[in-house]
Amino acid sequence: MTVLVFLDPVHPAGRLADASSPTILATDQGVTRGDGIFESLLAINGVPRKVQAHLDRLAGSALTMDLGIPAAEVWLAAITTALTAYAGGSAAEGQAVVKLIATRGPEGGNTPTAWVQVSAVSLALAKQRDAGLSVILLERGYDSDIAARAPWLLLGAKTLSYAVNMAALRHAHSQGADDVIFTSGDQLVLEGPTSSVLLAHISDDSGVPVKRLITPHLDTGILPGTTQGALFAAAKEAGWELGYGPVTPADLLDADAVWLISSLRLLAPVNTIDGVEIGTAANRAQLSAELSALLATTL
Amino acid sequence: MTVLVFLDPVHPAGRLADASSPTILATDQGVTRGDGIFESLLAINGVPRKVQAHLDRLAGSALTMDLGIPAAEVWLAAITTALTAYAGGSAAEGQAVVKLIATRGPEGGNTPTAWVQVSAVSLALAKQRDAGLSVILLERGYDSDIAARAPWLLLGAKTLSYAVNMAALRHAHSQGADDVIFTSGDQLVLEGPTSSVLLAHISDDSGVPVKRLITPHLDTGILPGTTQGALFAAAKEAGWELGYGPVTPADLLDADAVWLISSLRLLAPVNTIDGVEIGTAANRAQLSAELSALLATTL
Repeated sequence: MTVLVFLDPVHPAGRLADASSPTILATDQGVTRGDGIFESLLAINGVPRKVQAHLDRLAGSALTMDLGIPAAEVWLAAITTALTAYAGGSAAEGQAVVKLIATRGPEGGNTPTAWVQVSAVSLALAKQRDAGLSVILLERGYDSDIAARAPWLLLGAKTLSYAVNMAALRHAHSQGADDVIFTSGDQLVLEGPTSSVLLAHISDDSGVPVKRLITPHLDTGILPGTTQGALFAAAKEAGWELGYGPVTPADLLDADAVWLISSLRLLAPVNTIDGVEIGTAANRAQLSAELSALLATTL
Repeated sequence: MTVLVFLDPVHPAGRLADASSPTILATDQGVTRGDGIFESLLAINGVPRKVQAHLDRLAGSALTMDLGIPAAEVWLAAITTALTAYAGGSAAEGQAVVKLIATRGPEGGNTPTAWVQVSAVSLALAKQRDAGLSVILLERGYDSDIAARAPWLLLGAKTLSYAVNMAALRHAHSQGADDVIFTSGDQLVLEGPTSSVLLAHISDDSGVPVKRLITPHLDTGILPGTTQGALFAAAKEAGWELGYGPVTPADLLDADAVWLISSLRLLAPVNTIDGVEIGTAANRAQLSAELSALLATTL
């Protein structure tokens, strides 16, 4: 089942719509130009997780895109309406995907079309958490220093123009791989097409074990990962050291474990990168269990 | 007025739809991922121009995107239906914009949504032909040699993921400029966000005047321009020499005239680039008139 709720000034709690019927104009710039933004978040037992972090990032994307979107409280009301409808009157159980979408609206104007979509979590994502992923490195084409000087490239904004991300995933599948980690023109690790990248280094050089979690620096033009952010906060409390890139492909291969992390799949361990095993199966499993438990405390 | 005709196996000539009512599912991957392709072409007195070149380029984009789309004859039937409806029963007069759009269809599937849209030509485009453009150079972020080795970047495909192109135009307008010419990371001239770039060099070093038309090489990952292609063919017949890049920003500034050329705006002279005048007003006007006359023979 898919539930749609449009943000509509006439309906302060949002306007429910039938997802199996057309609801979008063919002239909407979201359709004709991929001109819009989105967020995907997880709801557990009817409660959206990290909703403020997602609304903050949505507002950041809107600013980068020069797109006026409804206020946070309007989104929150529509999310509540959508999750209530999804539960169908009974108490919500289990997980659901909540998507927030805003486009620039019909051609010739600048009046956004905005809606909330709630649907089931893909079984494939749960499988990725358990079985792990084979990943390939693919060039994203941009140098890691371009984001600040070329704001029109919209790096760091989560736009609807995801054709390249989807093509990269198709390319990985055609190579027998599950997913992708993008690298910059200057050979730094960036992010996955739909995830952040995380790595762990464990050392006890001085007899004192040091556990270090590392993610690429935001300066490289990647999306700020809301789940990576939540996990970092929890890991710090638990005594992990935190580090922010630059991360090189060699750093990934040298790590004790690497993960793709996102709101829907949560923490998916990377078994191999370009066919090279990352750490050992035992290490990956142990560290994944430890960090997944920490992440669960944030959900 | 906007006319919509969907390509639909049940309606071999296409299915007319009301453009003022929603016709697209909110879960269509064209909306949620900018995952689709398009073409824009000009119709004059009810006749679509260069229709085969556009259908060929659409098929090329579909191949790059691994997207199965309807055959050319199905598009042609829908275009005819749409232009007939647009004329409203009388003989079509004047110009109209014909857009061909195909998306990957609803999420979870790979059944394209495809339609033809006919609408009026923007008055702004006609004005650009007469008054010319002030243009700024903006980095596209990619090196000119990346297209061949990174097919997942979809360079050379005309996808619906146009958010960066639109953002570049907004950036130009915020700087008081009309349009953009993208440059590569290695400082070569690429294309405009919605146009090809063309320049003319006139010389008579040996007493024999040589007229040379130049456009950036397709190897740089730019879209093959259908209007540039048609003009090149006509110019060759008329005795012009033709050249294909690499083109540098210095080449643009040194040209006798520079144009942005596309199916809808046709040939729009560039008056200034980053505030520097290109050639002289007299030269620009004379060369624009000469080439516009040649282009008119191809329409």
